[in-house]
Amino acid sequence: MRLVSYMDPSGRPAPGADLPDVGVVDLSRVLDAHGVAAPSTVADVFRRGQDYQESVRRVLADVAGDDRQAEARGWVVPPPVALLAPLGERVLIVAAGTNYRSHVEEMGEEPPKKPAWFIKSSNSVIGTGAPVRIPRAAPDMVDFEGEFCVVFGRTCHAVTAADAMDYIGGYTIINDVSARDAFIAIGKATTPEEGRWAWTDMLLGKQFPTFCPMGPVVVTADEIADPADLTITTTLNGRLMQKGHTSDLLVGIPQLIEQMSRYFTFEPGDVLSTGTPAGVGMGRKPPVFMRAGDEVRVAIEGIGELVNTITGP
Amino acid sequence: MRLVSYMDPSGRPAPGADLPDVGVVDLSRVLDAHGVAAPSTVADVFRRGQDYQESVRRVLADVAGDDRQAEARGWVVPPPVALLAPLGERVLIVAAGTNYRSHVEEMGEEPPKKPAWFIKSSNSVIGTGAPVRIPRAAPDMVDFEGEFCVVFGRTCHAVTAADAMDYIGGYTIINDVSARDAFIAIGKATTPEEGRWAWTDMLLGKQFPTFCPMGPVVVTADEIADPADLTITTTLNGRLMQKGHTSDLLVGIPQLIEQMSRYFTFEPGDVLSTGTPAGVGMGRKPPVFMRAGDEVRVAIEGIGELVNTITGP
Repeated sequence: MRLVSYMDPSGRPAPGADLPDVGVVDLSRVLDAHGVAAPSTVADVFRRGQDYQESVRRVLADVAGDDRQAEARGWVVPPPVALLAPLGERVLIVAAGTNYRSHVEEMGEEPPKKPAWFIKSSNSVIGTGAPVRIPRAAPDMVDFEGEFCVVFGRTCHAVTAADAMDYIGGYTIINDVSARDAFIAIGKATTPEEGRWAWTDMLLGKQFPTFCPMGPVVVTADEIADPADLTITTTLNGRLMQKGHTSDLLVGIPQLIEQMSRYFTFEPGDVLSTGTPAGVGMGRKPPVFMRAGDEVRVAIEGIGELVNTITGP
Repeated sequence: MRLVSYMDPSGRPAPGADLPDVGVVDLSRVLDAHGVAAPSTVADVFRRGQDYQESVRRVLADVAGDDRQAEARGWVVPPPVALLAPLGERVLIVAAGTNYRSHVEEMGEEPPKKPAWFIKSSNSVIGTGAPVRIPRAAPDMVDFEGEFCVVFGRTCHAVTAADAMDYIGGYTIINDVSARDAFIAIGKATTPEEGRWAWTDMLLGKQFPTFCPMGPVVVTADEIADPADLTITTTLNGRLMQKGHTSDLLVGIPQLIEQMSRYFTFEPGDVLSTGTPAGVGMGRKPPVFMRAGDEVRVAIEGIGELVNTITGP
């Protein structure tokens, strides 16, 4: 299933599904017509459990084959569909840093034994098509980081790598937009204290409003044959900036889930981002940062393309 | 207003208000009877805006004087009231570290020019009366940190210290429970890299399930005459462990809001915790950690007392 959130005619977010040959359908109406309870959000589809997800999957498989029925019964959302961030509510976003060999090398760091991690405020989340605003407080070094994300399908705490894949509900994309102004300090740090401050300051630069584009869809786990075999690319104004492959992760998805779920509890709909590959603007010579009018696209095979323009400051 | 969440007879969380001489009332019923729309959660009371909060305040002031009417009309939640975490939904929790002079000194650190900060996963939140579970992964050094928290009443981004107080909706308490196992590494770090890793590892120890007791209530800002003049105490099994005063903050509340809102957007109901005073278990000689069967209480004047027992691992 390709699950989305879109803005309904009343201006409110509503869960939908993107169906082949049909387009985006109003998930609540379709399910209602088939006697299945409507979810409030895409995260709610996961929260309602695996049997429920199976029911939704069966209904959508049915509808997918029949675009005329879908049209006639008013299930199709009339284009242009205004997509929103797919999960439709505030979720926990834990992100791995320094987790692609290629990105660690370009930043001039040693590959660590485990990924750095941070929480990205879900108040920064926007959908595909929405503008990323350059902040007045840090206008000069706004960078992109395309990332492949796990979306949890079940409550996940203290699971082993061997069991980890069972907890995945689906996959999506984020652009971990980062104002790098504070980042320079990391290279200049000479004491443990300074190292710690440089890191926490760098993470502040990831928390600005609109700095977490997410989407365009959550693709359920059954549709991705091998999450360790996906190509991820980021382009800026059509120029290829990042190209990575999920086989290049220093800590793979099952191990990452094991490591993070030892501490965190992930609820259905929560997000674990796996880090960014080489090619970020900061790592280039000369560095490249985003300016008003730019367009940034993060694409992952089997998921889609997350497109955002840049505005401001 | 003293706003709470409680478990209603059907086992679901519901917003309530704690009224003098009356007890906890069902906020939805009371408002409904007065022609005011019911909020879905306490955070929703703030989200609906200042006029709405004024309406709620007027209704509650009316009801507070008349316990017989409240009883007769079925507004009073029959005791014992099962209080839950007061905000009633997942909110952003940004916490300041190293922000009391006394706590910085006991940890053997230099007072920084600004507070360290971190996000605490709202998946860790529990209410007063709920047990804190010692994790199997880090059972030996589970510590308490009593903290005074701001609850935002309006969307807050890039505000100055001069305007900051206008964005506060109320105040509450958290216990920033912390498994210190990784913390030792901070003292041992000798390079900037190690300093950064020690810090991120320490923050993992704050993310375990049940590690964020919050409550018992959110007291609205109008009821706290001076938030910089409050005593905070933490007791463990009746023994006084932490005693601090909010005048001792290195970065005061308006400046903290200015610093953090430069980056973060806080939505109504989001929480900014101001740090913990001296007396944590880790800073004592010999150190004191929490064990199954212990009872920890964090009390702040004008708010109340957050009480949790310890269980597990």
